[in-house]
Amino acid sequence: MDEETLQFWRIIAIKMMEQVEKAISPLIGKAEAGNVIQIGADGTPSKLIDLIAEDEVIEVLKETKKPIILISEEIGTIKINYDEPGYLDIEKLRNNPQKNINSKEFYSTNEPQIIFLVDPLDGTSNAVKNIPSFGISIAIAEHKGGNEFPSLDDIQMGFIKNFATGDVYETIKGKYALVNGEDAKPSDVVDLNKTSLGAFIYGTKFNKMHKIIEHIRRMRILGSVAIELAYVGTGNYDAFIDIRGNIRIMDIAAAQLFVKESGGIISDNEGASLNGSLSLNSRTSIVATSTHNLHEKILDLMDVI
Amino acid sequence: MDEETLQFWRIIAIKMMEQVEKAISPLIGKAEAGNVIQIGADGTPSKLIDLIAEDEVIEVLKETKKPIILISEEIGTIKINYDEPGYLDIEKLRNNPQKNINSKEFYSTNEPQIIFLVDPLDGTSNAVKNIPSFGISIAIAEHKGGNEFPSLDDIQMGFIKNFATGDVYETIKGKYALVNGEDAKPSDVVDLNKTSLGAFIYGTKFNKMHKIIEHIRRMRILGSVAIELAYVGTGNYDAFIDIRGNIRIMDIAAAQLFVKESGGIISDNEGASLNGSLSLNSRTSIVATSTHNLHEKILDLMDVI
Repeated sequence: MDEETLQFWRIIAIKMMEQVEKAISPLIGKAEAGNVIQIGADGTPSKLIDLIAEDEVIEVLKETKKPIILISEEIGTIKINYDEPGYLDIEKLRNNPQKNINSKEFYSTNEPQIIFLVDPLDGTSNAVKNIPSFGISIAIAEHKGGNEFPSLDDIQMGFIKNFATGDVYETIKGKYALVNGEDAKPSDVVDLNKTSLGAFIYGTKFNKMHKIIEHIRRMRILGSVAIELAYVGTGNYDAFIDIRGNIRIMDIAAAQLFVKESGGIISDNEGASLNGSLSLNSRTSIVATSTHNLHEKILDLMDVI
Repeated sequence: MDEETLQFWRIIAIKMMEQVEKAISPLIGKAEAGNVIQIGADGTPSKLIDLIAEDEVIEVLKETKKPIILISEEIGTIKINYDEPGYLDIEKLRNNPQKNINSKEFYSTNEPQIIFLVDPLDGTSNAVKNIPSFGISIAIAEHKGGNEFPSLDDIQMGFIKNFATGDVYETIKGKYALVNGEDAKPSDVVDLNKTSLGAFIYGTKFNKMHKIIEHIRRMRILGSVAIELAYVGTGNYDAFIDIRGNIRIMDIAAAQLFVKESGGIISDNEGASLNGSLSLNSRTSIVATSTHNLHEKILDLMDVI
């Protein structure tokens, strides 16, 4: 992307963060915010506050008048501002989420395409209960066209805002990772017994986590993957792990770039680089750390068990 | 305590919350806040921000001109405004924390005594990194005098403020539990697979937690015991567990009363009522839930393993 294009989309992302925050703010801490309205495109329940946040995302993208592919939790994969009728009939789409869409047809083109991967509200249940860790995650990718399916490598920019604290995490590939406008920097922790670890371990067998949890300094589960993964880039956490293997690409698309650009280390639970394809059904695991040394120690311990 | 006495101490507690918040606010998110200055009375390291918070606590209590016994993490057990020299030489006390004080001598009197159990900064490491869950916990007990050692049963009032969110939790024994001035109410959750659980599990073997963690809906570790225990009283969590057996009485003195007065259930990890004596060295475990039913299920699962 050239500088002008980057700045154009950056402004859209900033506007999106602001407008979604404004749209959901009356619902924070309100029980009705958690009412399940339907089953979303990804197969999980869509709550009122999720839909309000996502409607705002779509609105902001429509207003750009530029053709955009949006991949988002509730609505699925949709085309916006394309010259094809029906795609913007949100109500129709809501009643018939694009669950099994053949995304390939979207991408088989010779034109470059802009792809937004958005989690309109990361940490929904926290927002409903006003537990102070929830926000938006926005990643913007450019697909060069052709038959290749776009992947995480195509992501050019990422934005995360924690609505509870106002903290903003912003990254542009090859350029910077900033938290509230200042350079983000991971910690220099290399030892497990000095490690503050964010780790999602519930709802699963955690044999692999056993040894790690016994030896770390402290552990947190705030309940918002995007924000907690970004914490590795800022040094709030020394490591973040989710080895359940079912994190959606939308949830980590922005934060994984943020961690990389800040100088942190990130891989899947086997130490391989994340190379998820940009589709609604992509899932991954995450092992992100401040240092190579700590990364190796954690992978080793998981192997041992 | 009569109404007038309650209101007197309530105003002191509110002042304490405000002044401590003000005193530490310049240090939030600053690395120097986490500098270890000394080893505190409880044997754990005292960080700069802890000492600043505690100094403010002591200052507020001094200004009351009333005799008070303070039990606090860094300074230990001290007498304030008693007619005995030396007790208010903070610098001297800081260099020689009352680690092994024979608290019994404090309490062997025929006069009623006011005891403040304070955690000046619950969630210190969060405050240092600006992870949004840290605050103050204040419990106020009345010791009737005589040879009986004061216990959690003597606590008359509790106050917790989450400085990151501004939420205030207040309780008076037999009267109310309020969150931000409104009645606090636990959830009505009875099933594990609907349970949001707060649980400190790191730094220990967690065989006993295994089954529970596999079956709960979601889990959180925010890193501030007082606030997270209070969450059971407000329905933010359906349960909170810490079975490591080393929670300090100061940390949960206010929140355990808050949970009880809100209608929640609280016990130690064997189902017995908490009856910790009010001393620096008291430690306990906690199993707190929204409902009796959920409490039984959790205790049963821990037994099975």
